[in-house]
Amino acid sequence: MVKLVFHSDIDYLEDWLPPLRRLLPELDAKKSADVSDPASIDVALIWTPPPRIEQYCNLKAILSLGAGVDQLDLKKLPKGVPLARLKDPSLTEGMKAYCMLAVLRYHRDFHIYERFSREGGPWRFDLPKPAAKRRIGILGLGELGASIASHLASAGFAVAGWARTPRQIPGVTTHHGWERLDALAAGSDILINLLPLTAETEGILSRKLFSQMPEGSYLINVGRGRHLIEDDLLVALRSGQLSGATLDVFRKEPLPPDHPFWREPNILITPHVATSANPETAAQQVVQNIERALRGETLLNQVDRDRGY
Amino acid sequence: MVKLVFHSDIDYLEDWLPPLRRLLPELDAKKSADVSDPASIDVALIWTPPPRIEQYCNLKAILSLGAGVDQLDLKKLPKGVPLARLKDPSLTEGMKAYCMLAVLRYHRDFHIYERFSREGGPWRFDLPKPAAKRRIGILGLGELGASIASHLASAGFAVAGWARTPRQIPGVTTHHGWERLDALAAGSDILINLLPLTAETEGILSRKLFSQMPEGSYLINVGRGRHLIEDDLLVALRSGQLSGATLDVFRKEPLPPDHPFWREPNILITPHVATSANPETAAQQVVQNIERALRGETLLNQVDRDRGY
Repeated sequence: MVKLVFHSDIDYLEDWLPPLRRLLPELDAKKSADVSDPASIDVALIWTPPPRIEQYCNLKAILSLGAGVDQLDLKKLPKGVPLARLKDPSLTEGMKAYCMLAVLRYHRDFHIYERFSREGGPWRFDLPKPAAKRRIGILGLGELGASIASHLASAGFAVAGWARTPRQIPGVTTHHGWERLDALAAGSDILINLLPLTAETEGILSRKLFSQMPEGSYLINVGRGRHLIEDDLLVALRSGQLSGATLDVFRKEPLPPDHPFWREPNILITPHVATSANPETAAQQVVQNIERALRGETLLNQVDRDRGY
Repeated sequence: MVKLVFHSDIDYLEDWLPPLRRLLPELDAKKSADVSDPASIDVALIWTPPPRIEQYCNLKAILSLGAGVDQLDLKKLPKGVPLARLKDPSLTEGMKAYCMLAVLRYHRDFHIYERFSREGGPWRFDLPKPAAKRRIGILGLGELGASIASHLASAGFAVAGWARTPRQIPGVTTHHGWERLDALAAGSDILINLLPLTAETEGILSRKLFSQMPEGSYLINVGRGRHLIEDDLLVALRSGQLSGATLDVFRKEPLPPDHPFWREPNILITPHVATSANPETAAQQVVQNIERALRGETLLNQVDRDRGY
């Protein structure tokens, strides 16, 4: 019997249990609220840490339900327990579709037609702008960022990307290093944030960055809520420096009902749905990591806890 | 000197003149309103017929600004003048992007999040449905329809298509013949109309077709306005048989300000922007057809006026 604790506000054990059990019939998985003896638990499969995680004193692995682990607050996790990111093709597919949708919606003026449709007009024909004339900037060229950059480039957009260190992606202009961040921003009609959250990138979506972007440009944040200085976004939207923002992640989720973003006409709020693992395709990696953990081996996609990803 | 008349409500001679002149410096092109001697005109480049087209008695070719010609009302065009459709890669690119956007918007619930964002919530997380579980039906598998079917299939959707005659498209389930139209409708969570407008297809988007579709499904009409029985759509939306419709074409364009579609919350109206030719890429075919017309040769993409396309 392998004992697993499951904890997430945005994933359901009911979705995970059947595919996990097919691969590992001896699995005994419980939601954190149903665990009475934390010391008996071997493995944690979690989005955020379960309450009283320090009582799970015999954990052999912590497996993230996300492609990243920053939502876990590494300092609060028990030291010495190996931690793994989830690498699921569905995570990339979901993010590619979300970013394409959010980009096309601005590119093809659907955010304007939605308003006109609702307000009874006007009918205003404008010749669609060719994709090649729309410059998309991508912050973060890790696995997800690079996939999305390639996907948008193959749809004909003029795509540039930025990362801390040099990257090469066919069909994509790349910049690297902090001193080139302004150059990326200055050439982005639509800027997509896909950075990991680290001490260096926290608050990167700020007044300073927005002021470098072309007047009337758009922001898409699918990184983390703490990448964004929320007040700076409101100022940029109200001044017209930015024309709109599509936000999938927030400092506090669910976004509180009294948050000013709910009352800002040019913000589209989506409830952290850009992507999520598909238990059917991701279960195999989870089971492989459970087996590796029980044998004391290095995990697949194990996180360097000092580096933070 | 070659004399050309230009007539369109949705295209601009100013966009066409520079690329046409680069290829054919001796071109003298005028908007229909500026033509004082219609009998002197050699070629018409038009979306709809110019006023008093019968006075253009020496036309050697009529070149459509659209991928189709049904907007021209073939019976009203002077007989015996060769007529050509425009086949421009930009027409396909624009339509692919529009259909992907309209499909993803429903698939990923953006039409719901737009409303929640506007109304101050709620925050409602649902696990995104995999693309493979979303069935897209395509009416019309001509050049545009086949491209869009392949494009959506490559994005992971379950795509089926219907045409009058048999077609084969890799990765797409195809049906053909009128007796299979119901089967296509019954398997379409999202139905896209890309048919040419003919006597047979006029009014095909009707109560009868909607009643075959799954309850709560969606319609995207990028064919022609006269494919749709407008009252039948309103009934289907109000009863919940359909959950939403994205309409780019209408029986009367611009859509009149008092039209009930403007007051229907589940209709997204776009002002005939799904696609349009890009003068930069399409000018070459127009010039080749002008030269062919002057030499009395068959045009590229010449229309069979009896068949209607």
